[in-house]
Amino acid sequence: MTGTSTMSQKTTTSDRIKDVILSDGLRPGDLLPTEGELCDRLGVSRSNVREAIRKLSTLDIVDVRHGHGTYVGEMSLDALVEALVFRGVLSPGDDLRALRDVVEVRVALDFGMAEAIVTSLAGTTNPELSGLVDEMVAMAQDGKSFPQQDRAFHTGLLEALDNSLVGQLVAAFWDVHTAVLPRLNVAVAADLEQTARAHGQMLEAAQAGDVEAFHAAITVHYDPIARALDRDVN
Amino acid sequence: MTGTSTMSQKTTTSDRIKDVILSDGLRPGDLLPTEGELCDRLGVSRSNVREAIRKLSTLDIVDVRHGHGTYVGEMSLDALVEALVFRGVLSPGDDLRALRDVVEVRVALDFGMAEAIVTSLAGTTNPELSGLVDEMVAMAQDGKSFPQQDRAFHTGLLEALDNSLVGQLVAAFWDVHTAVLPRLNVAVAADLEQTARAHGQMLEAAQAGDVEAFHAAITVHYDPIARALDRDVN
Repeated sequence: MTGTSTMSQKTTTSDRIKDVILSDGLRPGDLLPTEGELCDRLGVSRSNVREAIRKLSTLDIVDVRHGHGTYVGEMSLDALVEALVFRGVLSPGDDLRALRDVVEVRVALDFGMAEAIVTSLAGTTNPELSGLVDEMVAMAQDGKSFPQQDRAFHTGLLEALDNSLVGQLVAAFWDVHTAVLPRLNVAVAADLEQTARAHGQMLEAAQAGDVEAFHAAITVHYDPIARALDRDVN
Repeated sequence: MTGTSTMSQKTTTSDRIKDVILSDGLRPGDLLPTEGELCDRLGVSRSNVREAIRKLSTLDIVDVRHGHGTYVGEMSLDALVEALVFRGVLSPGDDLRALRDVVEVRVALDFGMAEAIVTSLAGTTNPELSGLVDEMVAMAQDGKSFPQQDRAFHTGLLEALDNSLVGQLVAAFWDVHTAVLPRLNVAVAADLEQTARAHGQMLEAAQAGDVEAFHAAITVHYDPIARALDRDVN
């Protein structure tokens, strides 16, 4: 039923290590039993355990700190980002479809979370987010791009929501978008200032409790990349 | 900037294999150079190549078919599903927050894609989707659950959109939700028939071009799980 239906021997050992984490009640940041202890407990070879640990490390289910030991990981979305970035750069022949798909997911997440974001920010003031908007506008006026402020803004907008997964997803798709874009020859209208100011419009709409205005600001925000992709895709 | 900033030696070899795929113009399903050829081209050891291939295989960037060779993979979201399922079952102590986060992402994606779905289905008839709804309602009336039809419906709804990523994401979060739920002690109101019929309401709203009705049907659809989680979370 899940995509993990084609399981191999290695998957089985990694599943059993996951069961060890669960049955021992370990939490992210806790130390796992040593490789030798795992071999004994699971009755499998050291190379088998090692391979399973590598797989779990790729998924950030465990975190191998060389010279220190193996810990339960944070289960971040780094693996998703790596796979999607590669998918994005692999498929420029498909009329930039992979990048367009990523941008559409970003828009869908922003629209889908709009009501929750507006509800959580209505009536508040957010000096940190306002500060990021000011920095972005100032940098845009100097002709500079502002990736760090941009990412911090999009994740900061979701902080009040108390849903760490949606924040990580938004950040992951931001990362994919930002990593893929410079590797393709997309002529994005370099309207930095429009994009910078759209962030301010999103924030003001949310603080004013105005879902419609928030929706409109999302559209303004993605307008330059949407136009570039429409031009190239069709 | 991306989550992949803590790169190790192994990551470097896997990055170089990705570059081989790109520079050779390989596509999903194409055969990669052999392990020996990769060692020669990259000037690294066989164990190094093997470890990098395993990592890329976990990410579904390559697909190792034993006895046949290694092919460029489909870059599916299986790794995301595996990591999120484990995160979901690991954190029941956090008041089911991980499952609640997954459900909220599902709702956000449905809401975020609502306008595109309604636009793509307005004025059409979809016998396959209607058939799935009829099956679900009939099974619900027999007291049976209907996971296969449910998953097929949610992915089928997005098929007209021509965005394979959003379909895969929706399927991935469906998989995580469905895999995590039975492992937690959540008392979901077993209102199977309400859930079955909500799918029909989503479809009718989309075919009628009615975004508001589509939104309302999404809310009805997630109502039983939302109530169960609210009860348990707060």
